[in-house]
Amino acid sequence: MQKPAITQAPIHDIIAQRWSPRAYDANKAVSQAQIISLLEAARWAPSCFGDEPWRFIVWDKNKDSAAWQRALDCIVPGNQAWAMNAPVLVLICADRLFGHNQKPNRWGGYDTGAAAVSLSIQATSMGLVTHQMGGFDGEKARAAFNVPDQFEMMAMMAVGYVADIEGLSDELKERALAPRKRKPLGELFYDSVWNQAII
Amino acid sequence: MQKPAITQAPIHDIIAQRWSPRAYDANKAVSQAQIISLLEAARWAPSCFGDEPWRFIVWDKNKDSAAWQRALDCIVPGNQAWAMNAPVLVLICADRLFGHNQKPNRWGGYDTGAAAVSLSIQATSMGLVTHQMGGFDGEKARAAFNVPDQFEMMAMMAVGYVADIEGLSDELKERALAPRKRKPLGELFYDSVWNQAII
Repeated sequence: MQKPAITQAPIHDIIAQRWSPRAYDANKAVSQAQIISLLEAARWAPSCFGDEPWRFIVWDKNKDSAAWQRALDCIVPGNQAWAMNAPVLVLICADRLFGHNQKPNRWGGYDTGAAAVSLSIQATSMGLVTHQMGGFDGEKARAAFNVPDQFEMMAMMAVGYVADIEGLSDELKERALAPRKRKPLGELFYDSVWNQAII
Repeated sequence: MQKPAITQAPIHDIIAQRWSPRAYDANKAVSQAQIISLLEAARWAPSCFGDEPWRFIVWDKNKDSAAWQRALDCIVPGNQAWAMNAPVLVLICADRLFGHNQKPNRWGGYDTGAAAVSLSIQATSMGLVTHQMGGFDGEKARAAFNVPDQFEMMAMMAVGYVADIEGLSDELKERALAPRKRKPLGELFYDSVWNQAII
């Protein structure tokens, strides 16, 4: 299943095809080489002062299923219901401080968001899918995986191959079939001054 | 001039080729259609609760040079020195509150960073370059362009065509010729637990 964005203007295929499904194929593993390519894409994201404030922890069910299960246990039940089929989970953290002077880095989250979506776009180019979740217990994950307080918990991400939606609950099936939506361009993007629609 | 990332693992060309140069061609305009495609790529970024917390203001020197100049005036002198040649400037703001309940959105910056880099990756695919700056006077821009306090100023971005580095100062020329650098993968990306290098 693919679900390309219905765009108002042409965009590159791997951006249009990036999508956050909830149907993962529990029987298709993601290889270590694939994981490294995904991380490599995140690694080359831009950042303020070149700080690279992002830190990711990766769990591969096919390599260490016990650790993967502990990560899954940090996710809220509503997300676990589908994330349990994703062979790879990733915790995405952002440094609160700059490395060069240990002062607050107000772009820590911003730059980390760029790294995370770079991973997702790379995944799309490899035939993989990703889905980020804010719904997880960050403090439980912090304790379980020794994440220092200096790092903010931003997201958990499911990574894998998309599966047929037949395995989903009726509610998730409905969400999978609903059209992708975004606000009109002119509502968020302005020409020369605030609120003046660009189109 | 191109400056692809020296990667440890294969990644898609439009991610590897994305780069933040300081040499812009002042004589090559970016068309309105190109600008809309760039924004369209940002528009389809993922966001928490589908909030789409990003707001961008775009200034096109070839359309409204006075407004573009007012935007340039908000940038710190060190960045103005090269951004003055970029035909398009973009201010990137993040909503501090969720649209559905007006409660604080701690992913506002994170999701906006994803939208901004999506624009940059799209730009790369179109032969354009971008460079984001934290070095600008956000409160001056807020006053000049009526940005509500609810929105945090994240970045200014230069957009255009890369130029030959001969027009740059010696210092900027040196930076342009220096190799691109990132920390080693294993320093930022971990396997199953904090600080355990994935590679």
